[in-house]
Amino acid sequence: MITGLFLLAASGLNAQAISGFSPEAAKKQRQLEATFDESLKKENLDAWMQRMAAEPHWVGTDYGAENARWMKEQFESWGYDARIDTYQVLFPYPRVRLLEMTAPERYTATLEAVAVEGDPYTAQGEALLPSYNAFSTDGDVEAELVFVNYGVPSDYEELEKLGIDVRGKIVIAKYYGSWRGIKPKLAAEKGAIGCIIYSDPEDDGYYQGDVYPEGAFKNSTGVQRGSVMDMPLYPGDVLTPGYGATEDADRLDRQEAPTITKIPVLPISYADAEPLLRALQGPVAQASWRGALPLTYHIGPGPARVRLKLEFEWSLQPAHNVIATLKGSEFPDQWVIRGNHHDAWVHGASDPVSGMVALMEEARAVGQLAKKGNRPKRTLVYCAWDAEEPGLIGSTEWVEDHLPELREKAVAYVNTDGNGRGFLGVGGSHSLQTMVSEVAGDVPDPQTDVSVKERRIAAQLTRGSDADFELSALGSGSDYTPFIQHAGIASLNLGFGGESSGGEYHTIYDTYPHYTRFKDPGFQYGVALAKTAGRIVLRLANAEVLPFDFKPWQATVSGYLDEVMETADKLRKEVEQHNKLVARNAYTLAADPTKPMPKPEIKAAVPYLDFSPLQNAVASLKDRVEEVSKLDTASLSKAQKERLNQLLMHAEQQLTSPEGLPRRSWYKHQIYAPGFYTGYGVKTLPGVREAIEQKNWEEAESQIEKLAGTLNGMAEYLRKIQEVQP
Amino acid sequence: MITGLFLLAASGLNAQAISGFSPEAAKKQRQLEATFDESLKKENLDAWMQRMAAEPHWVGTDYGAENARWMKEQFESWGYDARIDTYQVLFPYPRVRLLEMTAPERYTATLEAVAVEGDPYTAQGEALLPSYNAFSTDGDVEAELVFVNYGVPSDYEELEKLGIDVRGKIVIAKYYGSWRGIKPKLAAEKGAIGCIIYSDPEDDGYYQGDVYPEGAFKNSTGVQRGSVMDMPLYPGDVLTPGYGATEDADRLDRQEAPTITKIPVLPISYADAEPLLRALQGPVAQASWRGALPLTYHIGPGPARVRLKLEFEWSLQPAHNVIATLKGSEFPDQWVIRGNHHDAWVHGASDPVSGMVALMEEARAVGQLAKKGNRPKRTLVYCAWDAEEPGLIGSTEWVEDHLPELREKAVAYVNTDGNGRGFLGVGGSHSLQTMVSEVAGDVPDPQTDVSVKERRIAAQLTRGSDADFELSALGSGSDYTPFIQHAGIASLNLGFGGESSGGEYHTIYDTYPHYTRFKDPGFQYGVALAKTAGRIVLRLANAEVLPFDFKPWQATVSGYLDEVMETADKLRKEVEQHNKLVARNAYTLAADPTKPMPKPEIKAAVPYLDFSPLQNAVASLKDRVEEVSKLDTASLSKAQKERLNQLLMHAEQQLTSPEGLPRRSWYKHQIYAPGFYTGYGVKTLPGVREAIEQKNWEEAESQIEKLAGTLNGMAEYLRKIQEVQP
Repeated sequence: MITGLFLLAASGLNAQAISGFSPEAAKKQRQLEATFDESLKKENLDAWMQRMAAEPHWVGTDYGAENARWMKEQFESWGYDARIDTYQVLFPYPRVRLLEMTAPERYTATLEAVAVEGDPYTAQGEALLPSYNAFSTDGDVEAELVFVNYGVPSDYEELEKLGIDVRGKIVIAKYYGSWRGIKPKLAAEKGAIGCIIYSDPEDDGYYQGDVYPEGAFKNSTGVQRGSVMDMPLYPGDVLTPGYGATEDADRLDRQEAPTITKIPVLPISYADAEPLLRALQGPVAQASWRGALPLTYHIGPGPARVRLKLEFEWSLQPAHNVIATLKGSEFPDQWVIRGNHHDAWVHGASDPVSGMVALMEEARAVGQLAKKGNRPKRTLVYCAWDAEEPGLIGSTEWVEDHLPELREKAVAYVNTDGNGRGFLGVGGSHSLQTMVSEVAGDVPDPQTDVSVKERRIAAQLTRGSDADFELSALGSGSDYTPFIQHAGIASLNLGFGGESSGGEYHTIYDTYPHYTRFKDPGFQYGVALAKTAGRIVLRLANAEVLPFDFKPWQATVSGYLDEVMETADKLRKEVEQHNKLVARNAYTLAADPTKPMPKPEIKAAVPYLDFSPLQNAVASLKDRVEEVSKLDTASLSKAQKERLNQLLMHAEQQLTSPEGLPRRSWYKHQIYAPGFYTGYGVKTLPGVREAIEQKNWEEAESQIEKLAGTLNGMAEYLRKIQEVQP
Repeated sequence: MITGLFLLAASGLNAQAISGFSPEAAKKQRQLEATFDESLKKENLDAWMQRMAAEPHWVGTDYGAENARWMKEQFESWGYDARIDTYQVLFPYPRVRLLEMTAPERYTATLEAVAVEGDPYTAQGEALLPSYNAFSTDGDVEAELVFVNYGVPSDYEELEKLGIDVRGKIVIAKYYGSWRGIKPKLAAEKGAIGCIIYSDPEDDGYYQGDVYPEGAFKNSTGVQRGSVMDMPLYPGDVLTPGYGATEDADRLDRQEAPTITKIPVLPISYADAEPLLRALQGPVAQASWRGALPLTYHIGPGPARVRLKLEFEWSLQPAHNVIATLKGSEFPDQWVIRGNHHDAWVHGASDPVSGMVALMEEARAVGQLAKKGNRPKRTLVYCAWDAEEPGLIGSTEWVEDHLPELREKAVAYVNTDGNGRGFLGVGGSHSLQTMVSEVAGDVPDPQTDVSVKERRIAAQLTRGSDADFELSALGSGSDYTPFIQHAGIASLNLGFGGESSGGEYHTIYDTYPHYTRFKDPGFQYGVALAKTAGRIVLRLANAEVLPFDFKPWQATVSGYLDEVMETADKLRKEVEQHNKLVARNAYTLAADPTKPMPKPEIKAAVPYLDFSPLQNAVASLKDRVEEVSKLDTASLSKAQKERLNQLLMHAEQQLTSPEGLPRRSWYKHQIYAPGFYTGYGVKTLPGVREAIEQKNWEEAESQIEKLAGTLNGMAEYLRKIQEVQP
């Protein structure tokens, strides 16, 4: 029977087909998956969450080390070879946190979330990690306050239009709108000397729903902790960029570490923010800047003045990664890697324990299958990462430390993190989209009588989109980053959500009672996650031909190119329109003369860029992908399949370049990167896109050439795949 | 010299041209206008506002009557024949106002706005009219509370999706989103037994800016009064629909008056609303429903229960319209009517006194011109209306009482009302757009060095529109309604605003100190209004050929037809999309199963309507208008001009029909009407548009025929104009 590799499942004619499997193998695989599903026990997730989230367990804590030891034992009891890979990583503990308003009135921020009735975990007092932003620099500053909305680039453009300068000021920014680390980074670039980040109730407080403990959202005292390390430059240990933070590694001097913030930054609650914001005068913030506090949002600067004093205890702490291996029966040197972090800011019932316990239950069930004679053909590597919260440190150090071996042996990396009730969301390498879509079509949704794929498509339809099941692109924010963006390993990140929102993220309220009341009562979606990730892992492990499909990948890249070209056109039109209005004096005439503003200036015109190298590259990729999809894999010999799989598992690496992205060489991937000024938010075709956004036309031209080279290289690589013929 | 009537000014080649004037006459008119401008004194506006807004002066008050007498004397002193036309109109005074929450806690609404420092007017205590909604019915009801957002039709559609029924409940709705009278009307249609309307701080409180007395916006105790009479049915005295409320007029029994609400309704402050909203449970309102109070907006019903008890003293009160006439030197039986109301809910410094004093200063200056030998050629009728606030009563009764004479003699009606700093806004008959645009180009903006037209176009440009100066369509909300929509008299409504927003509207805070601090310090825009309206009046009065231009009118109507056809198409697509999703079960699958909702049902398909009668009518109007614009008016004899002017001044009446709109025969105009379910908000081509919106396809078809007949009649009428040839 002739079955094209990638046509197999996409045809939809045979509901039992699985990409990369012959019909007989698919049948067997389905039986395996049915057995796997049956052995998953929600009681395990529940019990393990209670255990792992019983106490705070950030990196360096005894409880974190204890969790690592316990997980290792669990993996071993399930038949895995398990070890703990420990790195020595810089971690700041907050010793002094002082925020006070010194004018026009005095107010000292409490910086403390209250314990709530019905949740004893929130009453652990001193055991709770004080709220702070990890990798803020030490500092003691005092200045007038300026409200900068979310503190993202467009906000500073608006401030400029108002003639407001933050030089020498302390800024206060709302959480959300970007990854938090962007806020102090940009504030410092603009000349601010301090940064406060607060959780406005509009974003995850009473505006969204009832607050804890009545509801899931942030009460007035809750504070979101979080890292502000400059991860878009490089994640991981700040002192060992690009290599493992082993005991005896060379280390940067902390004063030179480029990913520690330039100015002190502290997160606060809305109870603490309200007096500060209320004391601001100056222009009233535009509607899109206003939050849900019962006050008029003024921008300042002043008359509010604040003092911010922060001192950290900087020390090396051990980050314990648990690495559990189940050697493959046929291809021991082809690794399917599966990970979730285990460290938390406080108890972390949702983030990360909900994902961690799903991974463990998945691993237990896989181990059980292996014991019963169904050992996966490829090697599985289950990982529990430490020190994700302060900056993806555990995973990054491990990847950096094992880079050559990983680039040789890794088939793919599958990541999870916090999980909740709702809809399946998957981001990742688009060459895996077909496989993930098939898996999603096979996993039943716990709340309805359809698959998780069908439920998600239904949700998309009600939002007016008739798109199929698609992967999003990966930016950053969890442990896939070193795998895909540094090592060039095809990666996925998945989880359920959308019916489990709340304000507990990185607060003392992310506890077992909160989780089981609001996030995933009964752990139904924890089990669904195990089923989904487990199927992905087992199919990657057992496929005769690895289920990489470059058709959706090519279509997606082609779409990105269209977006980038539209961005340039839009920018050009905006500048033209702006200049037309400046020439007509329209801005000045339309402005309220009682509110002085600087006269807008003519902007430099946006040139037309030559995108043809990319257009040609994308066109030739399309031809190549068409040819590859005609490949008759069923007729390949074993050696040919082996050759084919070797090519397939290394394809993603063709999309990296050794020199990486401009000004951040750690990021090697040419298709996906976290935005330099968005943080977690992805920038696709980042070299070209960010050059355009930054209006650096010379760099845009050179990045177009570079990316075209990468894509043409990929086309050549696909030709090699195409040439594997029976 | 051959000058096409309507091409004259539109050409822009001769900046001194004025539509309807020969070059020599235009020159003279400009000199007149310069003299007029010079004589305008802002000190008069200031002094008169202090006098008229010194005490509350709603219809029936002694101070209102005193204002009327005083204005009459003023007009007389300026050379006008002045009289007071008094009508006896039903007016409810609130005797009992009780609102209390009876469960889950007890709270009694204070229903009282506080006096503020620096504004002695707000401390007049019992002299201030208690806050209420005029023409609420009496009642004493108690029920569970339901939050209905703005209480407009789309809100009830959302409630239906959630399975929430307001039958037997009391609803609480935010002000804004529609004219207030729609809220109790619709609530009653849906089965509610009471209605509370409150001012959410998002709309005109602290969310918008600092609150009074620090800033212009509504403090927590401010309450917006206002009429809830069913004006979209008919405005004016509720007991005398369609005829003047003279002393001895036949009157309906109050119990039968269809424009009094069916259920009791009371407006409250956000201080009084907050405990009620906080006590609601049930679903959390969707984001677009939430306001700016520091709470989670739940919809209910209950557990909050409220009791609402209202009793009014219903009595006939005298409404005193001041009518001041300056007889025209050449065409005494051609009237240019100019009006503004003088009654206020409380002091009404902004609404209506700011417009009233601008009108008076305009009249004074015109009187002075007349005394110096520049008496207008046509008769001017300056009107100060009483009882506008409770329902356009003074003007409506006067129009109904003088209907035949007005339809014979009126050239146009020019309305103003509250006025403030900012941009010129003009709504009205589009046949006057060219004239108004010329006037706007001649009035200097007080704050910049350009005309008010150019400033407004600059503002439009910065909002991304490159439209020229255009008139909006008139809905309702001020005294133009009886003129244009009942009598078919070409009308305009104008005022400045956009840099004077606040929360004082219909509250005890609409005072002289508030006005002079926040609305129009120095009365610059009051003088600009006098210049604008005065020019319009003087040009209408002195034009050799009346400056009606049907080109923009035809283009506008053609645009309305496009809109209506798009509405039908959009509705069709929405229903198709909805039905597709229902068929796929997408709504149910996408919904959160823990939040039960009724299963959405298949909707009846939207038929394709035959718009061709309207398309043909609009096309033939276009040809006709083209022909008319070629008319060589300069060569016309005096008698021909007279014949032409008679045709022009009666053209608007061709757009009315004797039987009026379906279910509301008082509204005769076929192009503009207030929306049956929007209130003040205009519906253009109302017969057709509302039938489509209500999905009444049979009525839509018949209204298409009817409107096509009206437009074809207008085309015939334009042919008569075209036939006035030298």
